[in-house]
Amino acid sequence: MSANWGNNIELSLFGESHGEAIGIVIGHLPAGVRLDMEQIHWHMKRRAPGQNKMSTPRQEKDEVHIVSGIQDGITTGAPICAMIYNSNSHSKDYSELKVNMRPGHSDYPAYVKYHGYNDVRGGGHFSGRLTAPLVFAGSIARQILLQKGIRIGAHIKSIHDIQDTSFSVDIDESLLNQLSSKMYPTLDEQAFIKMQDEIEKARMAQDSVGGMIECAIINMPAGIGNPFFDSVEAHLSPLLFSIPAVKSVSFGSGEKITQMYGHEANDAYYYQGEHVKTKTNHNGGITGGITNGMPIVFQVGIKPTPSISKLQDTINVQTKTNTQIQVKGRHDPCIVPRAVVVVESMAALAILDMLG
Amino acid sequence: MSANWGNNIELSLFGESHGEAIGIVIGHLPAGVRLDMEQIHWHMKRRAPGQNKMSTPRQEKDEVHIVSGIQDGITTGAPICAMIYNSNSHSKDYSELKVNMRPGHSDYPAYVKYHGYNDVRGGGHFSGRLTAPLVFAGSIARQILLQKGIRIGAHIKSIHDIQDTSFSVDIDESLLNQLSSKMYPTLDEQAFIKMQDEIEKARMAQDSVGGMIECAIINMPAGIGNPFFDSVEAHLSPLLFSIPAVKSVSFGSGEKITQMYGHEANDAYYYQGEHVKTKTNHNGGITGGITNGMPIVFQVGIKPTPSISKLQDTINVQTKTNTQIQVKGRHDPCIVPRAVVVVESMAALAILDMLG
Amino acid sequence: MSANWGNNIELSLFGESHGEAIGIVIGHLPAGVRLDMEQIHWHMKRRAPGQNKMSTPRQEKDEVHIVSGIQDGITTGAPICAMIYNSNSHSKDYSELKVNMRPGHSDYPAYVKYHGYNDVRGGGHFSGRLTAPLVFAGSIARQILLQKGIRIGAHIKSIHDIQDTSFSVDIDESLLNQLSSKMYPTLDEQAFIKMQDEIEKARMAQDSVGGMIECAIINMPAGIGNPFFDSVEAHLSPLLFSIPAVKSVSFGSGEKITQMYGHEANDAYYYQGEHVKTKTNHNGGITGGITNGMPIVFQVGIKPTPSISKLQDTINVQTKTNTQIQVKGRHDPCIVPRAVVVVESMAALAILDMLG
Amino acid sequence: MSANWGNNIELSLFGESHGEAIGIVIGHLPAGVRLDMEQIHWHMKRRAPGQNKMSTPRQEKDEVHIVSGIQDGITTGAPICAMIYNSNSHSKDYSELKVNMRPGHSDYPAYVKYHGYNDVRGGGHFSGRLTAPLVFAGSIARQILLQKGIRIGAHIKSIHDIQDTSFSVDIDESLLNQLSSKMYPTLDEQAFIKMQDEIEKARMAQDSVGGMIECAIINMPAGIGNPFFDSVEAHLSPLLFSIPAVKSVSFGSGEKITQMYGHEANDAYYYQGEHVKTKTNHNGGITGGITNGMPIVFQVGIKPTPSISKLQDTINVQTKTNTQIQVKGRHDPCIVPRAVVVVESMAALAILDMLG
Repeated sequence: MSANWGNNIELSLFGESHGEAIGIVIGHLPAGVRLDMEQIHWHMKRRAPGQNKMSTPRQEKDEVHIVSGIQDGITTGAPICAMIYNSNSHSKDYSELKVNMRPGHSDYPAYVKYHGYNDVRGGGHFSGRLTAPLVFAGSIARQILLQKGIRIGAHIKSIHDIQDTSFSVDIDESLLNQLSSKMYPTLDEQAFIKMQDEIEKARMAQDSVGGMIECAIINMPAGIGNPFFDSVEAHLSPLLFSIPAVKSVSFGSGEKITQMYGHEANDAYYYQGEHVKTKTNHNGGITGGITNGMPIVFQVGIKPTPSISKLQDTINVQTKTNTQIQVKGRHDPCIVPRAVVVVESMAALAILDMLG
Repeated sequence: MSANWGNNIELSLFGESHGEAIGIVIGHLPAGVRLDMEQIHWHMKRRAPGQNKMSTPRQEKDEVHIVSGIQDGITTGAPICAMIYNSNSHSKDYSELKVNMRPGHSDYPAYVKYHGYNDVRGGGHFSGRLTAPLVFAGSIARQILLQKGIRIGAHIKSIHDIQDTSFSVDIDESLLNQLSSKMYPTLDEQAFIKMQDEIEKARMAQDSVGGMIECAIINMPAGIGNPFFDSVEAHLSPLLFSIPAVKSVSFGSGEKITQMYGHEANDAYYYQGEHVKTKTNHNGGITGGITNGMPIVFQVGIKPTPSISKLQDTINVQTKTNTQIQVKGRHDPCIVPRAVVVVESMAALAILDMLG
Repeated sequence: MSANWGNNIELSLFGESHGEAIGIVIGHLPAGVRLDMEQIHWHMKRRAPGQNKMSTPRQEKDEVHIVSGIQDGITTGAPICAMIYNSNSHSKDYSELKVNMRPGHSDYPAYVKYHGYNDVRGGGHFSGRLTAPLVFAGSIARQILLQKGIRIGAHIKSIHDIQDTSFSVDIDESLLNQLSSKMYPTLDEQAFIKMQDEIEKARMAQDSVGGMIECAIINMPAGIGNPFFDSVEAHLSPLLFSIPAVKSVSFGSGEKITQMYGHEANDAYYYQGEHVKTKTNHNGGITGGITNGMPIVFQVGIKPTPSISKLQDTINVQTKTNTQIQVKGRHDPCIVPRAVVVVESMAALAILDMLG
Repeated sequence: MSANWGNNIELSLFGESHGEAIGIVIGHLPAGVRLDMEQIHWHMKRRAPGQNKMSTPRQEKDEVHIVSGIQDGITTGAPICAMIYNSNSHSKDYSELKVNMRPGHSDYPAYVKYHGYNDVRGGGHFSGRLTAPLVFAGSIARQILLQKGIRIGAHIKSIHDIQDTSFSVDIDESLLNQLSSKMYPTLDEQAFIKMQDEIEKARMAQDSVGGMIECAIINMPAGIGNPFFDSVEAHLSPLLFSIPAVKSVSFGSGEKITQMYGHEANDAYYYQGEHVKTKTNHNGGITGGITNGMPIVFQVGIKPTPSISKLQDTINVQTKTNTQIQVKGRHDPCIVPRAVVVVESMAALAILDMLG
């Protein structure tokens, strides 16, 4: 399926970067949920562009316009349709984009798939802008999860080769709250200063950098998920890989677990009072595809922004010749900071869907 | 969903490690496909246990018994049900497994989810043995893909800290054929010798090791996949994460791409005659969620086998006290070699499903 | 699922009768389809209210506003979002509707399901108005089908106890074109005159009537559909039962076939030149759940409009007492004529989805 | 999808009439359900052939062999695979069936769809025998529903032109129990005697008859179901149309409601103590697609058995000429009595799936 997702909640995403609007339909949410619009605005703002020199100067207020499913700020149980109008899309000549394929972008695969009929303006339906309605949906999802005590938070784990520390075994609510209140959340306060330098260096070189995001979900009940095709990992991963530029997803200690011995990788259980805990959490709160009650921890790897001003080799599909391209326009030298809330949102949607 | 998967083909997996049989129902395959049973037997053998000291001494012939959907060796178009009888399961006392939770296994999450009613003998439905019917299904899928020229092959990328080299940009059919003909495929012939030592060292220490597998799919047409929720990455990853012990999935250069600059990560296009190619393949044949015609390349990370004979701390869920456990029985000190064909099989099933 | 439907194409329906707008997201349509907007307007007009005294006097132009997925009148392959703004909804006091449940409507079940949070204005999300975006989607679907030669048309089979004749075994394109060009299509031109009288009689009595619609799909290739869970009947019926007020669906000769003998009900095959035909079509073009190449024929039964001005017994869910209600507002004494194009649209969507 | 069904529970059906076995995989059932095997045997017996001259003389014990998912008679939460071995299939020459298409059967559509590779022996995967595993699954589903107080029962509403009475508004448990305890359940005890004569008359004439079945589900909570694509009607109907030979499905008063006036068709609510009831139940317990707490009532129409010994006109697809066929073998002159428990089973599965 291309545009729809979900078993219990349902998402249908639509719109193009330079069309009238982008939006989402969210089905099957419970009725009677009073939405905290301030929270939603804050999450939208964390993703919105144009807030500093690290992100694209395109100024979009990303104001969510609710069409259906909410009355007096409370969900009615009917599908919620929310739109974000594209107010600040530059009119310009897109004829070059139709024929010269930008490396690292969807341009060429989409050209083949849609026989040249896809909207190429600003990336069309493939634009990272489409994550804005996903953050809106995720913000609602995390409000519903919070009523069950489940809380989600993420930090920038790395930018290029600059590393933040990792989550420890115990992750408390105050830490996640603190992370969610920052525009550039890192566990080590100093880490982001170095990261910022790295991003600035790339920007000055008309280049871009990527990085990793680590996310935690706490207060998950044990026993959620299924063996095989609908394990927690199998349920979360498609949503995480739906985020443009994500190229890797790993759980717990991720790739590092492949270099451990069994006696290290096995998280030993113990009773803390009546509660079952593990001494380490290399499995990220999931064994056999099912939650064990420890925090769900995962990492996503994000590639450097493909839009760079540097001259690049490519092809012209009209003339069928090799050529070069210089991608103009407003780019983020690094989308990792803006992607943090997108990752949290996807996690919230996946978990809410699994809870049924 | 727990037991079913697929949009165009359909999988339904069933059975327990020490029950009568394990099996699979495969729906919606085309009629008229003449199956190469020798290929199927070879793929089953690559996964089967008991072939040397690196794997569990449990001797299972893993003979596939076909119940329906095939007549005179040709698919009829009706669902194929295939069973593998459990001939060599040891009868023993499983009462300890009911109460003492093995670390790193599904035991505790399953205990919570199924209220203690799950079959614990040999891991029950969670057993790695359930991958045998998946290899059968995958072997059929790759035969159908081969009719379209699409070929799949994988190698052991690492065991513990011993690394094989990686696929180069061009991957030809003969290389994949060569890899698929080996029980322990590596690109660097010397690498497996060191890996074998590492596995033996772990076995002697009553411990276990994990590793990574790198897989390639060649001759994929460009234009397959969708933006967002059904990207190639989003479609492959749930099947890959359905393989027990897989904790990470990454595409192309995977986590390494997060440390590249944009001008490196962007794979530059060029025409080779009429064919569109890229000079590098850091994106693993997928941009914007859609294939670009280059080989699809991905890695999966597999944790060390959780079953180890070393004494481990854990809990007794009946007495609700802390205790220790020594996991007896026949274990693989490393499941990575046997998992290679499972990874290839899952890739074949996901790709066949996407081709519709 | 509540709001989404489809395997190959995808529908996501949203909006409320008296909210800002109603709309639909249609995913996975092929790129490059040039839409005939005049056809779409004609189909929308056939469903639109306010065209004569048989239908509700609510004047809605039902103009479709396209938000995404179409550029220069051609599909781009990205999801199409289309909205219909609610221009003519009367502001009034809906407090009675919140507590006094209208018989025959969704009011009481929705009150229980949504704990009283559902939008009750004009029926909210349950309004028959939601069929307008479905007609838009269906109109696109039938244009795509027409490129394959497949054509759909329906007639009013009965209103109350006034019967039209039935389709004969052969149904040609000109007949279906003729039916689709009428606002009140019947096979017997005289039948609708009597039907009109019947509707008028009900209107004058502050009452309402229902009826049946018979629909045909011609030039269907043989071999479409599947045994059991995705038979043509199983695939069409959920969409047909999704039309508000539909209470029965039958194929071929429908309930009449239960009173035939086997030798009558079995449609005998014969070759007409190279073409396989049947002498009768009691099975409606489907045996074993799969098309046989004859016209698919089916009937839907539509109950009388539940909104009537007559005084009716009901309950007040707030005071938990028995009471009476007089449903005010603008009602159709019979929705069958406007439902004809809705039935055709649902058929088009179901068939397009099955063709993959 | 062809072989799989379900959102919360999951069905995967397999097997051929004259293959080794037929069977089903049932996923996502709750763990810890102790199965009443006597009930299952009784339901299987109600469907089994060979019990008298009204049904095919093929003697099949239809013994269910459980492969997985049940331990000590209790569900484990893992998928249940159940098989029924085909013990009494006659070996004979099926070469005529390969080329001469039986009218009213799947033969010709399947020939086209599967390019002649489908198993034609005894109807292969299309055989009515495939309903046996569905009755097994349904029998488990109704045991789970019974724990919630929900009870299902059906009666033969008509055979050819002989009618039974219909359910009244109130349907109590004892009536449904009584119906379920009979092999030939009718409300009017005399009705079946006449029906039996009608069946016998058809049998003597080498012909067959069909009929209707009316089914009720009582003690359903109000508020189950959804508007539009997953209404109760939309959810039940695909399963009912999956039963071979079913050509119509209607709810409440079905097609009769199309001849009522609005003031008759609207079921008036009233409080009976604290309970909400309706005075009539023409809507069959469902309005707006959602249950209102009254019994769900529906009818299915079943065509006469297509296998008749009479000589019939047909085609030979090999020679591409018109020919005649006389269907030999063991046939039911009427499958309606055996279909009653199949209808109840499908209802149980659909309702259990909706309850989530």
